[in-house]
Amino acid sequence: MTALPVPLADVRGLVDGALRAAVGRLDPHTYRVAAYHLGWTDGEGRPCPGPAGKALRPALALLSARAAGAPPESALPGAVAVELTHAFSLLHDDIMDGDRTRRHRPAAWTVFGESGAILAGDALMTLAVEVLLEAPGQGSARAARAMAAATRRLIAGQSLDLDFETRDHITLEECQEMVAGKTAALLACSCSIGAVLDAAPEPLTAALEEFGADLGMAFQLVDDLLGIWGDPAVTGKPALSDLRSRKMSLPVVAALNSGTPASARLAGLYTRPEPLEEDELAEAARLIDMAGGKAWTEAEAARRIGRARDRLARAALPDPVRAEFLHVADFVTRRDH
Amino acid sequence: MTALPVPLADVRGLVDGALRAAVGRLDPHTYRVAAYHLGWTDGEGRPCPGPAGKALRPALALLSARAAGAPPESALPGAVAVELTHAFSLLHDDIMDGDRTRRHRPAAWTVFGESGAILAGDALMTLAVEVLLEAPGQGSARAARAMAAATRRLIAGQSLDLDFETRDHITLEECQEMVAGKTAALLACSCSIGAVLDAAPEPLTAALEEFGADLGMAFQLVDDLLGIWGDPAVTGKPALSDLRSRKMSLPVVAALNSGTPASARLAGLYTRPEPLEEDELAEAARLIDMAGGKAWTEAEAARRIGRARDRLARAALPDPVRAEFLHVADFVTRRDH
Repeated sequence: MTALPVPLADVRGLVDGALRAAVGRLDPHTYRVAAYHLGWTDGEGRPCPGPAGKALRPALALLSARAAGAPPESALPGAVAVELTHAFSLLHDDIMDGDRTRRHRPAAWTVFGESGAILAGDALMTLAVEVLLEAPGQGSARAARAMAAATRRLIAGQSLDLDFETRDHITLEECQEMVAGKTAALLACSCSIGAVLDAAPEPLTAALEEFGADLGMAFQLVDDLLGIWGDPAVTGKPALSDLRSRKMSLPVVAALNSGTPASARLAGLYTRPEPLEEDELAEAARLIDMAGGKAWTEAEAARRIGRARDRLARAALPDPVRAEFLHVADFVTRRDH
Repeated sequence: MTALPVPLADVRGLVDGALRAAVGRLDPHTYRVAAYHLGWTDGEGRPCPGPAGKALRPALALLSARAAGAPPESALPGAVAVELTHAFSLLHDDIMDGDRTRRHRPAAWTVFGESGAILAGDALMTLAVEVLLEAPGQGSARAARAMAAATRRLIAGQSLDLDFETRDHITLEECQEMVAGKTAALLACSCSIGAVLDAAPEPLTAALEEFGADLGMAFQLVDDLLGIWGDPAVTGKPALSDLRSRKMSLPVVAALNSGTPASARLAGLYTRPEPLEEDELAEAARLIDMAGGKAWTEAEAARRIGRARDRLARAALPDPVRAEFLHVADFVTRRDH
C-alpha cells in the first residue's frame, strides 16, 4: 500500500482538537449527525475508534501556511474550514446521488434521515465561514471569501454532474469542467488558504491555488482510474465499482468521445437500462482501455502533475515546503487507494 | 387589509437589481431553481410578473444603515444577504417539512426535484457570505460573521422543530427557543446588519439586534395567530391551516401546557393519527382559545413589541429612523396577512 507522506499522517493530531471544538458549537441534534458523518461516533452517538478520511485537505492547508513562512498552526482555522466544507459537500452529495455508503459505513442520511443530513450539511458549511472569520490576523476575511468562492465552484460542479444524469452526450471538456468544480476547487483552496490567512502576497497565493487546481484535477483522474482498475482489497470498493454505477468518470467520457469502434460498443453497453453482468463490466473496462480512455487519463494525470510541479517551481517557496508539496503530489499520483 | 408602511413598499426597487446581480453569478442550472424560488420565473424559466414575498428583511436592513447615520444604499449588500439567507432557509425547509406549496406556487423541490433544491439552497447561502465579504467598508467581515452566526441559530431552530415531530411533549420554553432560532435570529440580523456594515459602535448594533429579536418573536406569535384565526381571503392560506397540519405553533403549545380541562381535550384531538374533520378543526381552535392559548399568544406578542419599543427608545437613533422602525413594528403586530 502506498503510504501517506509523514506530514499527512501527523495532521490529524494538530487539526482534530480544533475541528472538534468547532463542531461542538452546533446544537445537539445537528452535532449528532455531524459527529457520525465525521467518523467520531456511531449511529447511537457512541465514540468510534479512529477518524475516517485521508486528511489530505487539512494537510495541504497547514503546508500552505509554511509556504508563506508562517507556522503551520496559524493555518488551523483554514484546515478546519476546508475539512468542514468537504464534510458538508459529502453529506449533501450522498443524498443527491442516492449513495447509501460512505467510508465503509451507512451514509448519514440513511441513519438520520434526509432532513437531518441536509441540516447538518448546512450547519457545517456555515461553521466553515465562522471559523475563518474568527481567525486572528489580517487575512481572515480574504480567506473566508476564497472559501465561499471555492464552495460556489464546488456547487456548480455538482450541479453539472446532476445535469449529466439527464444527458445523452457529455463532452470531455464538460466533464473536466465538472471535475474542476467538484474536486479541484476545494483542493485549490486548501493549497492556498494558510497563505491567504497569513495575508501573503497575491502572486504566492495565486501560484499555490493554481498548483492546487492542477493537483486536484490529477487527484480525480487517479481516483477515476482506481474506480475502474483499482484493487478492491486496497481501495475498499468493489471491483469495477464506477462501472457498476455507470459513472460518467473521465476515462469513460474520454473513451466515449474517442470516435473508435470500441467507443461505439461501450456506448451500447453503458446506455443499456439493465444492470451490467460481471462479464459485461469486465468487457466495459476492456473497451474503455481499447478506446484510449485509460491512456488518456494516465497521460492527463501526468500532464496535470507536471504542470503543478512547474507552478511550484516558479513560486517563491522555502525549499523544505516545496519538497513536502511535491511529496503530496507524488502521493496523489502514485496512491493505490 | 393592513398596508405595508411606505418604506417597505419601496424596498424592492432598491434591492431587486443587486439581488438579481448576485444570483446571476450562479451556474445556469442552479440559477434556474433560485430564480423560480424567488418568484422571478416560472417552472419553464419564463419571466413572471411581480416578485413574491414581503421584503420585510431587506427593508429592515436598509433602515438599519440609516440608524447608524449611513445612507440606506450602503446596506444593500446586507439587504441582499438577508434575503438570500431567507430564501435558502425556505428552500431547504420546504424539503424537510414536505411542504409542497410556497407563496401560492408549487415549492421548488416539487418542480426541480430535491437535489436541485438542496443545491440551490446551498448556493444561495454561500452567495450571502460572498456578497457581504465583497461589500466595501470596514464592517464587511463583522457583518459576514453576524450573518453566519444568525444562520447557525436559524439551523438550530429548524433542528429543534424537526425534533418536535418525534416528541410527545414540548414545553413552552422549548417552543420559544425554536422560534428564537427559526424566525427571530434572521430578523435580529436584518435589523442590525446595515449598522454593522457601517462599522457602527457595538452598543448601537446590539440594541438594534435585540430590537430585532423581540420584533421577530412578535412576528412569529402574530403569524401563529393568523395560522389559526386568520381570514383565508386575506392570508391566502386555508382556514385553520396550521391546525390541519397539526403544527406545534406557540398558541397550541401554550394551550397544551395550560393544565386546563380544555388542554387535555385538545391533546386528545391533536395526537390522533387520523386527519381532523372540519368540525374537529373548529373544535380544536375553540379548545386552544378556552385553554388560554390565544390570550397568551396575544399578550406575549404585545409584551415582545413593548420590549422592542423600549430597546429602541434607549438606543441613540435619529428620530425619523426610530419612527420608521416603530412603523414596521406596528405593521408586524397589526397585519392581517
